[in-house]
Amino acid sequence: MNKTLAERAAQELLIYIREEGLVEGEKLPNEYELSEKLGVGRNTVREAVRVLASRNILRIKQGAGTFLTDKPGMVEDPLGFSFMEDQRKLVTDLMQVRLIVEPAIAALAAQNATEKDIQQLTLLCEEVERMIEEGKDFSEKDRAFHAKLADCTKNLVMKNLIPVICQGVEAFSSNVSEQEYRQTVETHRNILMAVKNGKAVDAEQAMSYHLLYNIQRYKKE
Amino acid sequence: MNKTLAERAAQELLIYIREEGLVEGEKLPNEYELSEKLGVGRNTVREAVRVLASRNILRIKQGAGTFLTDKPGMVEDPLGFSFMEDQRKLVTDLMQVRLIVEPAIAALAAQNATEKDIQQLTLLCEEVERMIEEGKDFSEKDRAFHAKLADCTKNLVMKNLIPVICQGVEAFSSNVSEQEYRQTVETHRNILMAVKNGKAVDAEQAMSYHLLYNIQRYKKE
Repeated sequence: MNKTLAERAAQELLIYIREEGLVEGEKLPNEYELSEKLGVGRNTVREAVRVLASRNILRIKQGAGTFLTDKPGMVEDPLGFSFMEDQRKLVTDLMQVRLIVEPAIAALAAQNATEKDIQQLTLLCEEVERMIEEGKDFSEKDRAFHAKLADCTKNLVMKNLIPVICQGVEAFSSNVSEQEYRQTVETHRNILMAVKNGKAVDAEQAMSYHLLYNIQRYKKE
Repeated sequence: MNKTLAERAAQELLIYIREEGLVEGEKLPNEYELSEKLGVGRNTVREAVRVLASRNILRIKQGAGTFLTDKPGMVEDPLGFSFMEDQRKLVTDLMQVRLIVEPAIAALAAQNATEKDIQQLTLLCEEVERMIEEGKDFSEKDRAFHAKLADCTKNLVMKNLIPVICQGVEAFSSNVSEQEYRQTVETHRNILMAVKNGKAVDAEQAMSYHLLYNIQRYKKE
């Protein structure tokens, strides 16, 4: 089977998955059923499944069947950070990207967030604060706060991109110095308030301040 | 072998690959040699290779050996665009991301481009113009121009991110209308001139105009 044929079958299978509304982690019908539903041979189905597995959309579990992955189409370290040589420069560059992208995200979030978004964002903000009070590591919740902001923009690309960038900063900053509690609480709250009140410019500036503060801190290490 | 052990071995193998300065597509020493060089068992080497293969850093060719991939760590469609349902919205969102990121890239390019960068950028600009004169499809060279600008920033992340975004726009815009020749030639030249002269603000604005023009055109379709 040539590459184009397998590719086309994969595209059809993808459309089928979307139309059926299969969710993350869900099991696909077996090869025989898929062959019937798509109106193609079982060999073609098998090839299509392989193509989508190589793209991290499907996972083949021997003996159990074929499943949609938990984050279809997303792979660990999708932008190849772990292969970059100068990891300190990588962190600086990631922060530069954040400084370009995240203020714009905060502004879009203020413009586009729904009531439900704001509730979720508020909860995340409060969780970070509670963890700080309890002296716990809040970095995961901190990332979730930034990811939720990206989600509030309603921009499909930002939603996938920001977790990758934030995760990268954390994974590769060798010296994560003592977390700056007061500053995190204050600036997260300022961003949240601006988004809540639909003030795009305030949100943008609050995010710029938040990031610049962290960049300065990293430079001093 | 637990996940942590395999992960650690993969990390060591990665360091080895970097230190040896292996280049894209190059063959790795065999399992036995790697085992000696890394000072770990062959099972561990095998696991480490599998981990890096799953990240698209290594490719195992049966009977031929293990090779560094052509774009280590990068996968096709790394941000999962093909799994997004509303592909027209995806294109709009990709253009929104470009409008946030690429003017800043143009500014950084004007600030950081070397003489050699400018020569390469000039060549790409001329190639696009020649293809236009010859009535050929210049979209690939157009993407190369934007990718080269990202390269001029010296930001490691931008260099990997921009090709993904630009490729996405092209792959998912169902109606690529007639290419706008005159506008492409003019605005590319304006961006190039600003970068050449080290004028960051001019470069930023020229890029904004270039993208806004294209966004308007897409909206009218």
